[in-house]
Amino acid sequence: MATIRLTIEYDGAPWHGWQVQAGRATVQQALEEALETVLRTRVPVTGSGRTDAGVHARGQVAHFRSESPVDARRLKVQLNGVLPPSVRILAVAVADDAFHARYDARRRRYHYHVSTEPRVLDRAWRVPVHASVDFACMNDAALALVGTHGFDAFCRTASETENRVCTVYRAAWESEARHGDWRFVIEADRFLHGMVRAIVGTLLQVGRGRRPVTDIARILAAGDRREAGPAAPPEGLVLERVVYGPPER
Amino acid sequence: MATIRLTIEYDGAPWHGWQVQAGRATVQQALEEALETVLRTRVPVTGSGRTDAGVHARGQVAHFRSESPVDARRLKVQLNGVLPPSVRILAVAVADDAFHARYDARRRRYHYHVSTEPRVLDRAWRVPVHASVDFACMNDAALALVGTHGFDAFCRTASETENRVCTVYRAAWESEARHGDWRFVIEADRFLHGMVRAIVGTLLQVGRGRRPVTDIARILAAGDRREAGPAAPPEGLVLERVVYGPPER
Repeated sequence: MATIRLTIEYDGAPWHGWQVQAGRATVQQALEEALETVLRTRVPVTGSGRTDAGVHARGQVAHFRSESPVDARRLKVQLNGVLPPSVRILAVAVADDAFHARYDARRRRYHYHVSTEPRVLDRAWRVPVHASVDFACMNDAALALVGTHGFDAFCRTASETENRVCTVYRAAWESEARHGDWRFVIEADRFLHGMVRAIVGTLLQVGRGRRPVTDIARILAAGDRREAGPAAPPEGLVLERVVYGPPER
Repeated sequence: MATIRLTIEYDGAPWHGWQVQAGRATVQQALEEALETVLRTRVPVTGSGRTDAGVHARGQVAHFRSESPVDARRLKVQLNGVLPPSVRILAVAVADDAFHARYDARRRRYHYHVSTEPRVLDRAWRVPVHASVDFACMNDAALALVGTHGFDAFCRTASETENRVCTVYRAAWESEARHGDWRFVIEADRFLHGMVRAIVGTLLQVGRGRRPVTDIARILAAGDRREAGPAAPPEGLVLERVVYGPPER
């Protein structure tokens, strides 16, 4: 028995998100089918968490358990030979037997990419925003997100999750290499359904002067999704990294 | 009479290069058609130079002359409203009357992007290379390119250009943000047809130990295209920037 850990990059555009859904193409399903082709047996794959339709990943992590020993290096090449070009295995490693991609994940980091300038080569994962957006002002507003709070106001109302308390370690806009390009970096122990996109959509309203900087704290306290802004589009969002380690609390 | 300077980004994949060719979709033609729609008159557009089919640009520069005054800011918005998403106008500026995008260009800078790791989100403009490629070794080899030389050996044999002397100011591989990602940066006063791709294809042979580091100087001196390696694929190549200024010599 071996536990295998996979690090996965994917372009979210062609997929209905990570999680298997009947009748829809998902990354998890594509991966299970590729593994079935290579290993000649069906094995379930467990991801660190779901990503929504259209959301990308540069560092999704998943695991599966194998009855027979696995040559990690060979499996990486084999899987990439079978998977469509929109999904690549970046790394395959033999993990501790007990490793669990979801339960052992301590932090997840997302990037949301925008630009105030027209863009071509990264248009699949960078969303245009108005030139007047005030990033310093959004950074002031984002400070209210850091810490442990109930994020009910930034969770999709249809979500069944009962515990909506998350600890946000970092939430800040950073300028990128090209003039006009920015990314919102958010790192937390967990994320609720639609959370990053609701936060970005609300911050962008602050950045355009449509909400006061103090609104984020007010919305968090209100705990009502209707108080927050609209969800930003999925294509700007990338699951950048999942951090593993001993429990933090 | 006004001379208008355009800075243009494009995804080379859907286009048969920059330059107008009968019966083929090119960026220059798309731009002339967009200008015709906006200005209601056909004006020829002159680029800083050609790019081949499949080659991208983040900073192509072009000019056109207009009989009537032009509102630069408005023209940018109008052109981007008419052009396909694979072509964006990054900047529109009123230039000196005598400005010429090709004759006044002093230096052109190209980037060629590769990765030793599997890649998804930038797969349209990053070419996979073998994990064993030795970048330090390729950098040693690339030093022989810097300076003023006849680049006959790195010019497509079908090219009609008679003067094949170019001055290369910079030619080096640089590692990028993600582990395994590298770009070859080359800056010169001018480039011959197929020159960067022939250079990259030859350097990659050096990087894999198939040619000695000293081979670049030998090939330059031989001046024979058959001595150099195969052209690297077009999709890794980006015209990054065109530098204008007073004549350098």
